[in-house]
Amino acid sequence: MPDFTDRIRIVLIATSHPGNIGAAARAMKTMGLTRLMLVSPKFYPDADATARASGADDVLANAVVCDNLGQALAGCHYVFGLSARQRTIPWPQMSARQCASYVAEQDGAEIALIFGREHSGLSNEELEACHYHVTIDANPDYPSLNLAAAVQIMCYELRLAGSEQPVVKSGCLPAPVDELERFFAHLEQVMVEVGFLDPQQPGHIMRRLRRLYSKAQPDKQDINILRGVLSAVQKRQPNNS
Amino acid sequence: MPDFTDRIRIVLIATSHPGNIGAAARAMKTMGLTRLMLVSPKFYPDADATARASGADDVLANAVVCDNLGQALAGCHYVFGLSARQRTIPWPQMSARQCASYVAEQDGAEIALIFGREHSGLSNEELEACHYHVTIDANPDYPSLNLAAAVQIMCYELRLAGSEQPVVKSGCLPAPVDELERFFAHLEQVMVEVGFLDPQQPGHIMRRLRRLYSKAQPDKQDINILRGVLSAVQKRQPNNS
Repeated sequence: MPDFTDRIRIVLIATSHPGNIGAAARAMKTMGLTRLMLVSPKFYPDADATARASGADDVLANAVVCDNLGQALAGCHYVFGLSARQRTIPWPQMSARQCASYVAEQDGAEIALIFGREHSGLSNEELEACHYHVTIDANPDYPSLNLAAAVQIMCYELRLAGSEQPVVKSGCLPAPVDELERFFAHLEQVMVEVGFLDPQQPGHIMRRLRRLYSKAQPDKQDINILRGVLSAVQKRQPNNS
Repeated sequence: MPDFTDRIRIVLIATSHPGNIGAAARAMKTMGLTRLMLVSPKFYPDADATARASGADDVLANAVVCDNLGQALAGCHYVFGLSARQRTIPWPQMSARQCASYVAEQDGAEIALIFGREHSGLSNEELEACHYHVTIDANPDYPSLNLAAAVQIMCYELRLAGSEQPVVKSGCLPAPVDELERFFAHLEQVMVEVGFLDPQQPGHIMRRLRRLYSKAQPDKQDINILRGVLSAVQKRQPNNS
């Protein structure tokens, strides 16, 4: 993870349920963020916050409690306000993903992402303290994300924006095609021996099986197992016993 | 939101904390998903589940409780298992975002996303029931997402994929997983009958074959051919002739 996460503060305003503060700390830490600021939390510190923070107790312990939003935003270059609601005065808008890309590009900038109250979100005054309003795309009939869930999605987008897509882990190399051909020949032979395949008309069925095993991309050891099964079948054939 | 969300079931296995079930229901509904399945939940129904579901009480009320994973997966064409852990036997892997794009493209397919226990995740057996393992990119020093937070991210990615991706028509649907399970049982039986597999120690070989055929994604007709071959082998066994 690049160091831009060090420049991001997550600011929770007037949180009612301390459990949500702990869950937000956990959400942050899973995505590599550490700087939590709490503006006038209703109950804090609190056992529920500690319990829900789980292994992110260090993030919680280092959380800074502020009396007002101005204190929490001191020194910031960009402020983003998470908001689900439509406002009468339109403000520059971004999706969570756009916000994350934007933040990743602001080299050296101090960034704050602010999250409002559980039931009423951010006030107009708080929204006007933001450069951008950020909306998490959601079900229009029920856009009511839990506070920590919104923090989780935002931090997840920041993490992905900060790192290239994770490398897709590829397994072993598939078996060379000549080994695959020998397997197909063996398979066809056994299917004929057990009376499943008409040797005069192998076409359709063999074509399907070729397609199937090509998609599976068996490696050498897979081929050894499959051919082992075929050999075991041949040994038990009545005419070989 | 396109209707593909109707074809997605979120399956929670042996959840310990009922609050997480409620929070998962809420996470689903905020992203437009509704089909929740609970395999052997520790405590359910429960007041904590109801409280945390908030306005997603309808999703919770319609949740289906199952005795085992097979029941929850009946009729599914694709099964994705959320997993943070590295496994000794590598399985086809996807990120949450890749999974969402993939799901959005499988026109008409029934999809299951399975989420394991809070502390121990999915068992090896459960992981082997999956076509793909899905990993949410996270802080390697603390990848421990809360269960409902993982559901939230996955449903969020599904929603974005569903609203952005053009629908790509894919080929035939693969066979439902219950048919695949019957094929595996048949294959294991025949391998034992021909003396290839030690019925006391089927593990390693069966695991490899499961992975191979999961990658191949056989359709109904493929399964008919494969089982036809197995039946033909059985008919020719010395003890059956």
